[in-house]
Amino acid sequence: MPSRAWKWFIEYTHPTQAHMHGVDRYIYSGKTAFQRVEIIDTDFFGRCLILDGKIQSSQFDEYIYHEALIHPAMVLHPEPKKIFVAGGGEGAVLREILKHRSVEKLVMVDIDKETVELCKQYLPQWSQGTFEDPRVEVLYMDARKYLEENTEQWDIIFLDLPEPLDNGPCYLLFTTEFYKTVAERLRPGGHIALQADNLNPKLFQCHAAIYNTLKRHFKIVDSYGTYIPSFDTEWGFIFASQTVSALDFSNEKINSILEEREITDLRFYDGLTHQALFSLTKDIRFLRSQSNRIIEDNNPLFST
Amino acid sequence: MPSRAWKWFIEYTHPTQAHMHGVDRYIYSGKTAFQRVEIIDTDFFGRCLILDGKIQSSQFDEYIYHEALIHPAMVLHPEPKKIFVAGGGEGAVLREILKHRSVEKLVMVDIDKETVELCKQYLPQWSQGTFEDPRVEVLYMDARKYLEENTEQWDIIFLDLPEPLDNGPCYLLFTTEFYKTVAERLRPGGHIALQADNLNPKLFQCHAAIYNTLKRHFKIVDSYGTYIPSFDTEWGFIFASQTVSALDFSNEKINSILEEREITDLRFYDGLTHQALFSLTKDIRFLRSQSNRIIEDNNPLFST
Amino acid sequence: MPSRAWKWFIEYTHPTQAHMHGVDRYIYSGKTAFQRVEIIDTDFFGRCLILDGKIQSSQFDEYIYHEALIHPAMVLHPEPKKIFVAGGGEGAVLREILKHRSVEKLVMVDIDKETVELCKQYLPQWSQGTFEDPRVEVLYMDARKYLEENTEQWDIIFLDLPEPLDNGPCYLLFTTEFYKTVAERLRPGGHIALQADNLNPKLFQCHAAIYNTLKRHFKIVDSYGTYIPSFDTEWGFIFASQTVSALDFSNEKINSILEEREITDLRFYDGLTHQALFSLTKDIRFLRSQSNRIIEDNNPLFST
Amino acid sequence: MPSRAWKWFIEYTHPTQAHMHGVDRYIYSGKTAFQRVEIIDTDFFGRCLILDGKIQSSQFDEYIYHEALIHPAMVLHPEPKKIFVAGGGEGAVLREILKHRSVEKLVMVDIDKETVELCKQYLPQWSQGTFEDPRVEVLYMDARKYLEENTEQWDIIFLDLPEPLDNGPCYLLFTTEFYKTVAERLRPGGHIALQADNLNPKLFQCHAAIYNTLKRHFKIVDSYGTYIPSFDTEWGFIFASQTVSALDFSNEKINSILEEREITDLRFYDGLTHQALFSLTKDIRFLRSQSNRIIEDNNPLFST
Repeated sequence: MPSRAWKWFIEYTHPTQAHMHGVDRYIYSGKTAFQRVEIIDTDFFGRCLILDGKIQSSQFDEYIYHEALIHPAMVLHPEPKKIFVAGGGEGAVLREILKHRSVEKLVMVDIDKETVELCKQYLPQWSQGTFEDPRVEVLYMDARKYLEENTEQWDIIFLDLPEPLDNGPCYLLFTTEFYKTVAERLRPGGHIALQADNLNPKLFQCHAAIYNTLKRHFKIVDSYGTYIPSFDTEWGFIFASQTVSALDFSNEKINSILEEREITDLRFYDGLTHQALFSLTKDIRFLRSQSNRIIEDNNPLFST
Repeated sequence: MPSRAWKWFIEYTHPTQAHMHGVDRYIYSGKTAFQRVEIIDTDFFGRCLILDGKIQSSQFDEYIYHEALIHPAMVLHPEPKKIFVAGGGEGAVLREILKHRSVEKLVMVDIDKETVELCKQYLPQWSQGTFEDPRVEVLYMDARKYLEENTEQWDIIFLDLPEPLDNGPCYLLFTTEFYKTVAERLRPGGHIALQADNLNPKLFQCHAAIYNTLKRHFKIVDSYGTYIPSFDTEWGFIFASQTVSALDFSNEKINSILEEREITDLRFYDGLTHQALFSLTKDIRFLRSQSNRIIEDNNPLFST
Repeated sequence: MPSRAWKWFIEYTHPTQAHMHGVDRYIYSGKTAFQRVEIIDTDFFGRCLILDGKIQSSQFDEYIYHEALIHPAMVLHPEPKKIFVAGGGEGAVLREILKHRSVEKLVMVDIDKETVELCKQYLPQWSQGTFEDPRVEVLYMDARKYLEENTEQWDIIFLDLPEPLDNGPCYLLFTTEFYKTVAERLRPGGHIALQADNLNPKLFQCHAAIYNTLKRHFKIVDSYGTYIPSFDTEWGFIFASQTVSALDFSNEKINSILEEREITDLRFYDGLTHQALFSLTKDIRFLRSQSNRIIEDNNPLFST
Repeated sequence: MPSRAWKWFIEYTHPTQAHMHGVDRYIYSGKTAFQRVEIIDTDFFGRCLILDGKIQSSQFDEYIYHEALIHPAMVLHPEPKKIFVAGGGEGAVLREILKHRSVEKLVMVDIDKETVELCKQYLPQWSQGTFEDPRVEVLYMDARKYLEENTEQWDIIFLDLPEPLDNGPCYLLFTTEFYKTVAERLRPGGHIALQADNLNPKLFQCHAAIYNTLKRHFKIVDSYGTYIPSFDTEWGFIFASQTVSALDFSNEKINSILEEREITDLRFYDGLTHQALFSLTKDIRFLRSQSNRIIEDNNPLFST
């Protein structure tokens, strides 16, 4: 093995669990009004965005996270025209959403303008110019406040938020009160997708709580997940709808929709990947069934 | 967060990638004729077996590894009677194999008697008494030598070997020469399953090489994988056969076979888990298609 | 460099400062009624005793700590006969004290019998049989209580206590109330020596507070210190007396006393070492002069 | 304790020994023609300069290193006028040397212009403008070549070089051939001082070898050392002369020389510090006496 690094980023997922990433170069380190931001070049995963000590995405594998978050919900909608994104700072969600040409309007509301500007400057490969797309509008404010105050409805709402940390900017975007508003802002036939915490069975309580809370407002809630190397874990997502289940879409159907839409440049998502994403293993299904935690404004959830 | 540990096990997967596990208690540390053995109680995963610095299995999640290795091949065989295991030191493979009542003969050949004895003493929960089952015979010798010298044939051969490390005990059990012998030791309709290294796309070359090498000797070779928390990664396995593909077995069919066999105590494996295991994501399928490395006795493979 | 360890002991001296010690073997790990005890064989320093996560002494360099603690006070007393030790679990203080043949009675009071027994079993090289010396009496109780209840007086009192940790067993043995009792238990011409925390100028507040508190009860208080490799820092001690200053003893005088007493087997301490120990650098003298903290039962000191 | 860092600089002093420094901000990271340079703000020690993975000096305690290197040799010379420095990149040696007003000419030869420029930009507190002093001349070339080719003689030569690393820029500035040249470039009554590696008794072989090698060319060679917090160790220096020994200067004499020279702003060095520096402990004196290693161009020394 070549010589080891002497600069390290250490991400704790628990007081006795951590992942060490050898660092090539530190690109940026600062504190916005909302969170601490680090941009580093790791030896193994290339450039990484870190918010409050947690890797958000890496150059090497952000395609996995972003394709997994975006394409199932896009494909499951017959003609997604109006898309709302809460969070989404790096801009990679814009890049993926706009691969579906039916999109006419795409509003992204992120609370932290400074972080978005840093991403534009240091992570241009993530957004690939889509911040400048005429269909895109970016607003810098609290997404919950926006949705509460604007009754406009959307085909798909994506929640691409960091983990709900105590004192962090977004723990009130994981509550039953917020999800109720989200459900009300969907057009008929609309649905949502969100990142939904760790699927490590030892750290599963967050995902289960998000799942249970969404169940109050959506008839169909489908957990899904995939291994994300730079997170060193299986990561969870959720698709929620009043009418459609992701489990009803076969390998072939997914592939034919992608073909019709002439989307040929995906590296991660296709029909078989769709099956992989939504096929939860038995232990995870069991753990999910054991939880009945509901997240409320007065009883919020904090990820470790 | 509660206070952090001051004793740590640090597993390197690469010179600039490592996982830190806080340690509660060190149970055993020593060196056999073949490898360094550590048995530790981690705070997060409970008791762990570590060979040459690599976690082999943990109390918390060994059910995932062992059910994933054993049950697909067992279920895909109509009536597995004679089973051969190369490696398998902890004895958990015996425990899982014997859940299929058709088994009449189960031979396990592990080179390292001392390690097996340590597992019996310190990890009894893994084997749960199955070392004493009358159908089980355990031999301590080189499994390759055994298969070369004994022409007996088997319904299923499992290869549950540590990673092929330079100077380690098993790198010659990953070569085309060995796999040829393995293929010849199968009864008609027989097949094999093996652990097959990391599925992290950055560390995928080992899995791809094992896959390609098996392709020389088996008509059907199915990669599969699952996230194993204590490995902090998606781990790979391979099923190989001349006649059967794991992909042909539906969710329902798997569940009905398990039901017929009255196997009700699995925590991880069932029909939907089977789909999850064998549905590789598009990026992994692509990476696998790019490799043409064949592992040979004269050109062996070494995992990092 | 040879390959690195995968088992580590990490000692934090501050939330952002830590020392990593590669571990060869874990010998013992447990919890007594008073503290957590670990005995480990490190690659670099050999066997180490660790209490509540802090290295107390290592096989490689315990001679430095113990000779530094014991011999200055022994040499500065014209004829030390009756010696009292508070703490001293490993027994190495007994070994050093008994090198002075004038000693007739040596009482050691350590609160933690289990730890002393573990030291006898696993660290016999520290005490070298001196627990069995007929002049030695070992009592297992709170040393403060003992001194409060027994008015017997001593030529020298040594305080060989772990750092004052919150919830630890000894923070009330660093207060002005305790030091008053200690001073009253000395015979005329008697004096004391103690370990007195870190001399790292960034972590100096503990030493300065101990120094100031002793100043209330002793006319002469001499700080001293030496670098201890396994602590990765300069460590502090204090000598306190009503009549004698360590600074008055020249290189030659120390050497001639050692010669008279026929003490020839010291590895660390001699006349020149005495000068090294008691010659504080200007910055440390300045820092000490800036502190006026007094440690009281109602306002105790906690080391980090 | 406040929450721990997630960015760390880890300095290895041995394959199983390391020091972890929590990082606030990364200021600069790059590679010059000669070495890798990092400038980081640590939480504990403030800004640090790191060359090839080794801390060279920290904002918090560079006064210790630089006062220890410079003032003994300056004070021991009756009237230092012409001073030569090999290395000295940060410029702090200039700052300390110029506190002695007798200095008329000060030439510094550092091989690495880029590093010096980085120090000027990012560590201005080290040099405090002395690069601009009219008595100072800075040349960017190999100091050995300079001294070999220029027969000019000096009152004092300082060697402020990084550790001799394999492939590093300076291992040929630690050999008997180089020291011979250095000795020839001194005026009568002149002398030298240099940093001389770790005084940890387990890592003492470098210091002992430098000491032995200097003995070939100087009648008097005095080792000295002090604990440097950011190095986490006792660090060694050497003073070498044909006529004067540092041990002959009493506490009072040192203080009176400093007073005569009207040097009042030292934080670390004075008469008592001088005694502390040059009073080696018995174990170190013994270890030094056991080594007979001579460093030669054909048999160079490499620090770990």
